[in-house]
Amino acid sequence: MVRVCFAKLGAIGSAVISEYLLDERADRQDLEVRVITSGSKMGETEAEEVAEKVLEFNPDIVIVASPNATLPGPKKLRDTLKSAGKNVIVLSDAPAKKIIEELENEGFGYIIVTGDSMIGARREFLDPSEMALYNSDVIKVLSATGALRAIQLAIDRAIQNGELPKLVIDAWKAVESCEFSNPYALAKAFAAYSIAEKVAAITTKACFVEKSAERYIPMVAAAHEMMRYAARLADEARELEKSCDSVLRTPHARDGKVLKKTKLMEKPS
Amino acid sequence: MVRVCFAKLGAIGSAVISEYLLDERADRQDLEVRVITSGSKMGETEAEEVAEKVLEFNPDIVIVASPNATLPGPKKLRDTLKSAGKNVIVLSDAPAKKIIEELENEGFGYIIVTGDSMIGARREFLDPSEMALYNSDVIKVLSATGALRAIQLAIDRAIQNGELPKLVIDAWKAVESCEFSNPYALAKAFAAYSIAEKVAAITTKACFVEKSAERYIPMVAAAHEMMRYAARLADEARELEKSCDSVLRTPHARDGKVLKKTKLMEKPS
Amino acid sequence: MVRVCFAKLGAIGSAVISEYLLDERADRQDLEVRVITSGSKMGETEAEEVAEKVLEFNPDIVIVASPNATLPGPKKLRDTLKSAGKNVIVLSDAPAKKIIEELENEGFGYIIVTGDSMIGARREFLDPSEMALYNSDVIKVLSATGALRAIQLAIDRAIQNGELPKLVIDAWKAVESCEFSNPYALAKAFAAYSIAEKVAAITTKACFVEKSAERYIPMVAAAHEMMRYAARLADEARELEKSCDSVLRTPHARDGKVLKKTKLMEKPS
Amino acid sequence: MVRVCFAKLGAIGSAVISEYLLDERADRQDLEVRVITSGSKMGETEAEEVAEKVLEFNPDIVIVASPNATLPGPKKLRDTLKSAGKNVIVLSDAPAKKIIEELENEGFGYIIVTGDSMIGARREFLDPSEMALYNSDVIKVLSATGALRAIQLAIDRAIQNGELPKLVIDAWKAVESCEFSNPYALAKAFAAYSIAEKVAAITTKACFVEKSAERYIPMVAAAHEMMRYAARLADEARELEKSCDSVLRTPHARDGKVLKKTKLMEKPS
Amino acid sequence: MVRVCFAKLGAIGSAVISEYLLDERADRQDLEVRVITSGSKMGETEAEEVAEKVLEFNPDIVIVASPNATLPGPKKLRDTLKSAGKNVIVLSDAPAKKIIEELENEGFGYIIVTGDSMIGARREFLDPSEMALYNSDVIKVLSATGALRAIQLAIDRAIQNGELPKLVIDAWKAVESCEFSNPYALAKAFAAYSIAEKVAAITTKACFVEKSAERYIPMVAAAHEMMRYAARLADEARELEKSCDSVLRTPHARDGKVLKKTKLMEKPS
Amino acid sequence: MVRVCFAKLGAIGSAVISEYLLDERADRQDLEVRVITSGSKMGETEAEEVAEKVLEFNPDIVIVASPNATLPGPKKLRDTLKSAGKNVIVLSDAPAKKIIEELENEGFGYIIVTGDSMIGARREFLDPSEMALYNSDVIKVLSATGALRAIQLAIDRAIQNGELPKLVIDAWKAVESCEFSNPYALAKAFAAYSIAEKVAAITTKACFVEKSAERYIPMVAAAHEMMRYAARLADEARELEKSCDSVLRTPHARDGKVLKKTKLMEKPS
Repeated sequence: MVRVCFAKLGAIGSAVISEYLLDERADRQDLEVRVITSGSKMGETEAEEVAEKVLEFNPDIVIVASPNATLPGPKKLRDTLKSAGKNVIVLSDAPAKKIIEELENEGFGYIIVTGDSMIGARREFLDPSEMALYNSDVIKVLSATGALRAIQLAIDRAIQNGELPKLVIDAWKAVESCEFSNPYALAKAFAAYSIAEKVAAITTKACFVEKSAERYIPMVAAAHEMMRYAARLADEARELEKSCDSVLRTPHARDGKVLKKTKLMEKPS
Repeated sequence: MVRVCFAKLGAIGSAVISEYLLDERADRQDLEVRVITSGSKMGETEAEEVAEKVLEFNPDIVIVASPNATLPGPKKLRDTLKSAGKNVIVLSDAPAKKIIEELENEGFGYIIVTGDSMIGARREFLDPSEMALYNSDVIKVLSATGALRAIQLAIDRAIQNGELPKLVIDAWKAVESCEFSNPYALAKAFAAYSIAEKVAAITTKACFVEKSAERYIPMVAAAHEMMRYAARLADEARELEKSCDSVLRTPHARDGKVLKKTKLMEKPS
Repeated sequence: MVRVCFAKLGAIGSAVISEYLLDERADRQDLEVRVITSGSKMGETEAEEVAEKVLEFNPDIVIVASPNATLPGPKKLRDTLKSAGKNVIVLSDAPAKKIIEELENEGFGYIIVTGDSMIGARREFLDPSEMALYNSDVIKVLSATGALRAIQLAIDRAIQNGELPKLVIDAWKAVESCEFSNPYALAKAFAAYSIAEKVAAITTKACFVEKSAERYIPMVAAAHEMMRYAARLADEARELEKSCDSVLRTPHARDGKVLKKTKLMEKPS
Repeated sequence: MVRVCFAKLGAIGSAVISEYLLDERADRQDLEVRVITSGSKMGETEAEEVAEKVLEFNPDIVIVASPNATLPGPKKLRDTLKSAGKNVIVLSDAPAKKIIEELENEGFGYIIVTGDSMIGARREFLDPSEMALYNSDVIKVLSATGALRAIQLAIDRAIQNGELPKLVIDAWKAVESCEFSNPYALAKAFAAYSIAEKVAAITTKACFVEKSAERYIPMVAAAHEMMRYAARLADEARELEKSCDSVLRTPHARDGKVLKKTKLMEKPS
Repeated sequence: MVRVCFAKLGAIGSAVISEYLLDERADRQDLEVRVITSGSKMGETEAEEVAEKVLEFNPDIVIVASPNATLPGPKKLRDTLKSAGKNVIVLSDAPAKKIIEELENEGFGYIIVTGDSMIGARREFLDPSEMALYNSDVIKVLSATGALRAIQLAIDRAIQNGELPKLVIDAWKAVESCEFSNPYALAKAFAAYSIAEKVAAITTKACFVEKSAERYIPMVAAAHEMMRYAARLADEARELEKSCDSVLRTPHARDGKVLKKTKLMEKPS
Repeated sequence: MVRVCFAKLGAIGSAVISEYLLDERADRQDLEVRVITSGSKMGETEAEEVAEKVLEFNPDIVIVASPNATLPGPKKLRDTLKSAGKNVIVLSDAPAKKIIEELENEGFGYIIVTGDSMIGARREFLDPSEMALYNSDVIKVLSATGALRAIQLAIDRAIQNGELPKLVIDAWKAVESCEFSNPYALAKAFAAYSIAEKVAAITTKACFVEKSAERYIPMVAAAHEMMRYAARLADEARELEKSCDSVLRTPHARDGKVLKKTKLMEKPS
């Protein structure tokens, strides 16, 4: 029985459903999973408290998920866990690319999802419903383009053989994990992921640079429209694979093995 | 400072982002949030371990989220927390309607989301990516029709004045919380939610009744196509409100007050 | 020369074009068809007058089509024709399921189309144009999912060999008659039909239970939005089959034989 | 009590639901309706038999509906009824424009629907399901662009005051009866109707001129794709009016008066 | 080195990008191209000046592109060039069909694109942005249906062997040059082109016949909606070919040879 | 009479219809326009020959349009014209931002369109039809987001008062020229333009960096899918303005004055 723990500070699309990626039908018998989260807050205080609970669970592997892993909170969290001797995988978004070398040197595994762009966090625009809509679109993009499968497989490998991933999921890494049979489906998924990646350029400017509401409101709204269209295009990619009955599926067996199938009516094996 | 804890067993669409509904931009100063989850598993053992961690956090309010709250695991979890003197709100899906009286008698608050239909959990169909796609569609439906706002406001009230909700979110409750200005937007949202509600009739039959893969595979696939279209129709409802510049937004102020606005370019108040 | 008569009381989507299902290009030489209808009214008086005309035509087979075949008008009509020694097939919608045993005992054939949901018959909403739009969507759903083919083939068999159908067209029966080559097309058609089935739950409540216009108007509007989306999804199913060039077609030969083909450019045989 | 009879030979989209245009909710108390139809056949024999039944009903007004009213069957039918002293309104499609003068001279009313284009009647393509799909699209175009309202109002006037219509429903006549509030909705409806009108140019060539299946099959398929897109564009026009909450509705009162409303939540008057 | 010159008077969709059809990646080494245009104006004065510049370039072949080649300006231009001994190909729209015999007698080549309909040139509607949108849609229709490939290949042949084309690109000629593998893709392209062809009937009436702005404004707007939908349908045709990975591509080699390929990942040959 | 000349080397979306932006209905009486183009080639030899022809026309203003104005060909062309004393406006795409200072110092006007991204110029992918489709999408984006209006108005001002533009059309500049009435329309247009801007990052990498066809083919295909979706989103923005009847139009009067209007049925003024 492997014990896996997800420790989350703040929200990123890749992480909101990450624990379910490992046991999507709740029938694995080789795995115990816990998740400890501090909600939206990602300060050092939260990090410490979360770390404490994680350690009480005594996990074999911990996935530390947060936006922007360069911030003090996420750093505190992973460092505390590492110091306690845990295998730690950092799951984060594009800004984390800046600390890849540091992570490698310190023995962390990492999964960096460049398409998991920052939300348009301005009070005039972002209420709980808009937050949810954005995450809906992000999850659609990440799942239909293959990014979530890449995360699944990386964590699955870590569980199976202890190998910590060193993975930056860019458009290529995402679409490769879908093994598209139709090359236009691949191209559409690549395009969808690429649009998703660019959203952060607008949200970060709108949230941290623009001071005028006249400008930052339309910008965050535009950023969410981009993600909405990225989600549509990702859906179009998947529909194309449906038309060829070649949608790749990688469900878990009860013993945790990753199975594989493409034709809808066949058994996975 | 109010301490709110989410205790989750298994996955439902309403709950995967529920903790972020309370503090969507991570700037509330009146609130501390923790989430303890057991992943997909929802047995009694998990319930006990989760309960223990929740109590260590000493929360003022606990939201116990799970599919089918009639099962032993969720029951164990809420009972343990209640016995320890906590204010407990049960957040669950349609099967929980069967125990409303019980919940009321025992002093639980509850939020039952009838549109949050069970996933198509058959191994030939449901892999981690398909699971994520379905949740993406569920979240879209729940947010664009207003169900997530109804959840937000119910928990907000509980935080503000300790009043535990007794709320079944059906199509009417969902759309009322959107205060649609265009009556066709309301009708479309109502329709989307109604489609979402009906998905469970097909998934439960496909997962628990049908034995033949020849039949249950197409049925779970059909159920997900229904949710996919419910999501589109919900999106169409929201687009209609955009065309009237009357999208309701209810962001939180820093002090936790729920603000309100409709015109995109105006300040919330 | 077989003489077939359609006797209609009131409107259901399955019946508005039913007579043309038998001779879609007006070139069959083995068949004479008549239709006698009372318009929207479906009382006993109309039933009697229609029956009289039907009998004057001296048909070999009569299809009695109406909404809700449990009502007195439709009953009077079929009983009168049966008493006169005619072979009678009842074509109706879901409420007729309640009298299946009665129909069987009394020697009627029947075709019950569960996806042919009741219209949103409220004066504030339903004018002639809205009625037509709804029927357009119903016809799209019934034809693209296969329900109309199931009706065609059932009546064709009755004509050929006198065997009266005992047929409840649910989602499975509908899609099976399409012999989809792409399993996702089947799933989409199944989903479309399932949405169509659920429309009646809302229209019957809105028409017969809700007293407040504030509530029943949005509900009938929502019901029609559901059928509109069911039609779109049915169309998507058919488009998927087009992408595989595998659309099943079952045209009649001049001698009434049902031919079959799938590739667009081939001859039926 | 006015007695109205529809006598139909063959199928046109305008006529398949025409009887329901007069009493869309089956609650008019001033009207009795009968329909006598010969199915797809439209020969002189059928015409005579239909005429006989119509006269037995002794209607005040007869609407004689058929494709191409210049053919011998439809002519026989209307002449027989006229000779018997009946008020006859011819309801037909574009080819009937050639005999307008004749119809006027002989005292017929007429409603000619130029957008009600001939179907793609080739055996390799047109089976019962394809026939139904085409009619679904035609009905969508005719209802959403206003043509069916123009028919409704013309027959309503004839019933009210005996005035027989002299009406060619081209794109202008269609859209004027919708009283669009948004000028782009009008333009889209106009465009949809114009596309529908052009379908006949292709179907007539494919059915009556082209001898090679290599050419006529793609042509009839193309014609149906045109009508499918005309239906979509008509739907887009109506959606635009929904966004303005200005959809015109003209339901009948119980006494047969035509009521009128635009805002969805208001009462008709 | 072949010298090709495009001489344009006024704008038609086929011509705005025609020079790039010959050397789409700017790497042909066998060709020199020049374009001389007078902007929107197409009078005889402009024709003369353009002709003069063309002759200075001393081209081997001249393509004279303009709307309505029957007008004096275009006639002057082609006659001047012909008199100077040049090989002239007339590229124009449907009205040019009237002078085909004249063109043949006088030794001109011609390419007449019947789907390249006249724009809705009314000041209340057509501003520069609307003009561009219309051309965007026209180009989409012409490229996705195959018309531009037919133009490409005709000019390619003229360059290769001096043979001047005598080509009317109607729906058949357009779709044949796409060699569609899916017959529904062909049908959709045929339909799209057919809609495009019909646009001119409305724009010419709106521009030259209707005097009332109340009528001609909606008409030109409707005409552009038609082209917008023709473009969508053309796109749908191409998407269908993508789902089969059978999109035909005919790029030029460096030496000007026309290569050919269909599978996306293969080399052209 | 102002004499305006467009000198083009190679193709960019902004330029293929630029000459028609000035006189969209061919009725201006204050303007004479000429265009001299070298087709796709943009070498120095072509630049010289084009320059010569331009000077023979003796224009008051020359717009020099080309991709990547930093290349020797475009530089030669503008320098030659400037040396001859002409007022020169450089119209180019994003790479030209690098030489803004140089252009200003040397007295050129400039219009740089950052959304006018480089095409996916790989032989395996880009044939003449694909090239045209891409330009169709680019033109749609540039017109519906406002970029082409910004170009129009900048050149109009230069014609009217000799003021040479110094204009970088980024997303803000584009959407501001549309004066959207609906803020979501603005956001959608902003998003569409932003997607368009990002296309070049992928095409330049695919064309100039990637050596493996296995990688550059999907990348150029993805880039075109991005532009296709940018075009759709731009269309959605415009449709939103249609729903409000607030589409801005800026047609030219006969005397060249720029008129203005928003309601479709009103006269421009």
